[in-house]
Amino acid sequence: MLSGKILITGSNRGLGLEFVNQLAKCNNSPEMIIATCRKPEEAMDLQTLANTHKNIHVTKLDVANEASYGSFVDHVKDLVGSTGINLLVNNAGYAPKSTRINMVKWEQMQETLLINTIAPLMITKALLPLLTAAASKSCIDGFSVNKAAVINMSSVLGSISANAQGGLYPYRASKAALNAITKSLSLDLQHQYILVASIHPGWVQTDMGGKNAPLTPQESISEIVKTLSKFNEEHNGGFYQYDGKQIQW
Amino acid sequence: MLSGKILITGSNRGLGLEFVNQLAKCNNSPEMIIATCRKPEEAMDLQTLANTHKNIHVTKLDVANEASYGSFVDHVKDLVGSTGINLLVNNAGYAPKSTRINMVKWEQMQETLLINTIAPLMITKALLPLLTAAASKSCIDGFSVNKAAVINMSSVLGSISANAQGGLYPYRASKAALNAITKSLSLDLQHQYILVASIHPGWVQTDMGGKNAPLTPQESISEIVKTLSKFNEEHNGGFYQYDGKQIQW
Repeated sequence: MLSGKILITGSNRGLGLEFVNQLAKCNNSPEMIIATCRKPEEAMDLQTLANTHKNIHVTKLDVANEASYGSFVDHVKDLVGSTGINLLVNNAGYAPKSTRINMVKWEQMQETLLINTIAPLMITKALLPLLTAAASKSCIDGFSVNKAAVINMSSVLGSISANAQGGLYPYRASKAALNAITKSLSLDLQHQYILVASIHPGWVQTDMGGKNAPLTPQESISEIVKTLSKFNEEHNGGFYQYDGKQIQW
Repeated sequence: MLSGKILITGSNRGLGLEFVNQLAKCNNSPEMIIATCRKPEEAMDLQTLANTHKNIHVTKLDVANEASYGSFVDHVKDLVGSTGINLLVNNAGYAPKSTRINMVKWEQMQETLLINTIAPLMITKALLPLLTAAASKSCIDGFSVNKAAVINMSSVLGSISANAQGGLYPYRASKAALNAITKSLSLDLQHQYILVASIHPGWVQTDMGGKNAPLTPQESISEIVKTLSKFNEEHNGGFYQYDGKQIQW
């Protein structure tokens, strides 16, 4: 199980909401779950969950709006105090419907790269002092998501070697770019013992994955939690699917 | 050697200029070289070359300005006529100086992804009818850059598996995303026999590469021309360095 102070973006629905749900309801629920979303006032499921689990802090964050990061980080600092954040899950994402080359649009590329690529990097940069604080104050040796980690929710669709179908330019490009960021972050932050990895959650029955997907959000998140809890130095800078199997870039 | 009608973006300096130079000066110079740049009026070296080589057509294109694509494509259509474009080289690129995570800026990410990732995709989309025309009218069987091809100037810095140094977030992310686009394009366009590949030009003595680079622009382009001329179906959707050696994603 996961412990410490955990921040998850895009927590109002889908995998983000289920992640918060499973962490909140497990026997050893983490000390603090900061569940961010764009519009907390409309996030009914998340608010209902937070009403009965006092370690959940629903916090407003539009990852696409850099101007809001300053006050967001100040608020998070007040919440977590000097021991910082142990685990940042960059989960908020966007998948436009575009398929083949003749359908792709400029604005779609910009929007998708903004939310799936630039935002996770810049959120990580903004919260880095809190991750560094957690790493330096943890009693855990080496690398662990319970010490200090950044988990980027990527997708096998961002694997260039696994691409056999083509199309999906905005989504594939944005997740390949996110994977490149995962690798650079893992190298830049390894001396601080902050673990960084990309996760493919599987094809899941969410608004994004559609109802024909083989996995439920419950199954995907349950496996992801098990996988993350086993992560060590070997996993730093890697790309893994929900069940721990490594994926090629 | 390369033949037919060739369009190269970012031709005012560096590798783009040297590419035009070598194509213009070889014994069997291609039928037409459309050399684009943002400011033709300031591209003195390119203009000088064009004055003595009538197959060079210096053409204005700011790849970052989608609004200008329409009139640009109309102009190119007038130049090439019904046989279209055989080879599109997406060479125009941008490399900000940013290194580690604490230096990276939001605008830098946007600008770099715009020029290195979105623009090559959207230029390819805009010129696709001309590539399709060339593919359908060529007498060459199978895949060849002399029939119809899109070559994306990428970089080994965009290889996630080769990244051992970290940092360089905007550049690495933009080139990994470009490689993802190369792969999708190669699958979407294979039925039209349009070859698509990513090239790493090596570390070259240009404004971008700096004077300590081991390769001259002459050496890099000479090798790239040899490598491209050997490309066939096996190379479609791949990532190769200047001398033809394959690079992992």
